[in-house]
Amino acid sequence: MPYIPLPDHLPGITGLLEYSQVTAHPIRILTQTLLRGESTLTAAERELIATIVSHNNECKFCTAAHTAAADVLLGEHETCEIMKQDIDAAPVSEKMKALLKIAKQVQVSGKAVTADAIALAKERGATDIEIHDTVLIAALFCLYNRYVDGMATVAPSDPAFYTGLGQRLKEHGYNRLPNGYDHLKTQVQPS
Amino acid sequence: MPYIPLPDHLPGITGLLEYSQVTAHPIRILTQTLLRGESTLTAAERELIATIVSHNNECKFCTAAHTAAADVLLGEHETCEIMKQDIDAAPVSEKMKALLKIAKQVQVSGKAVTADAIALAKERGATDIEIHDTVLIAALFCLYNRYVDGMATVAPSDPAFYTGLGQRLKEHGYNRLPNGYDHLKTQVQPS
Repeated sequence: MPYIPLPDHLPGITGLLEYSQVTAHPIRILTQTLLRGESTLTAAERELIATIVSHNNECKFCTAAHTAAADVLLGEHETCEIMKQDIDAAPVSEKMKALLKIAKQVQVSGKAVTADAIALAKERGATDIEIHDTVLIAALFCLYNRYVDGMATVAPSDPAFYTGLGQRLKEHGYNRLPNGYDHLKTQVQPS
Repeated sequence: MPYIPLPDHLPGITGLLEYSQVTAHPIRILTQTLLRGESTLTAAERELIATIVSHNNECKFCTAAHTAAADVLLGEHETCEIMKQDIDAAPVSEKMKALLKIAKQVQVSGKAVTADAIALAKERGATDIEIHDTVLIAALFCLYNRYVDGMATVAPSDPAFYTGLGQRLKEHGYNRLPNGYDHLKTQVQPS
């Protein structure tokens, strides 16, 4: 049960964004910019960064949500699962492997990011802005994971919920839930 | 030396906000809303939350900057230093002590926030929104600390730099540096 009263039908981050709309607005813009804005990283690659950080923070809601988003964008379920076990074994580019390792370091601490990890990413063709965005996306998900779990929000156990959410994140990104999508809210049955 | 080329005269977060203005904009709005927006917590109390999280993340730049901001707002230097050593010994309200302990748990992980810590804060009169804002401010500084240190930005060693920054944060908050403050940029000599 959440530590503060949140709408029952809005689990995880969704209830928090509804509860505090004045902070939700810049959080949505930052997320949309980083995960869907102009970038030489694909939306799927950026969802993988969100996923590895959420997974390592053991945030059930965010991990399931961004795994689903990455899966929908990639059209398969294997990459995320392999990456969570072993970044080097994941079917992503060598550059992405290096960026995912940086993200994993950011999850631990800013100070855990090594010059070697940055050098490897650059060697494999990562640009300055790609490195910057990787660090900031990873840092943003350290915020999200703490927000979601620090308030003890509910994570639905039904996998169909996350599949629906992943599809919506593919189609609409992180802007406010558009009109006509209210059924996605009310059909949710948090466990 | 930062992992990507950043302006020499803009240390810590300031160079990053200049480097990526498209992400800086929502970050500034979120910070201004949480640390200076309408709240039953004072600006100084919210700077203490930023300080305890940055201190525990061992982020030199953010700790010095928000210590300075809290000091300027409080008009003394003792509260921050005592709080860093022992929250219970700090000359703040019993409610603030409970909120600072929640912030310290958020620094560790979202999952580290205990029902007991929340119950204590509520018992001491913390409202739902105060608890919410404490968790989100703490989470935001977990983002900032990782962004600043994950990019290996420079932290000036001259205490006068942070005093000037603290004064500016008191007077102008987290909005963009206003015109006429350019001397604050160019006088900085990062160590």
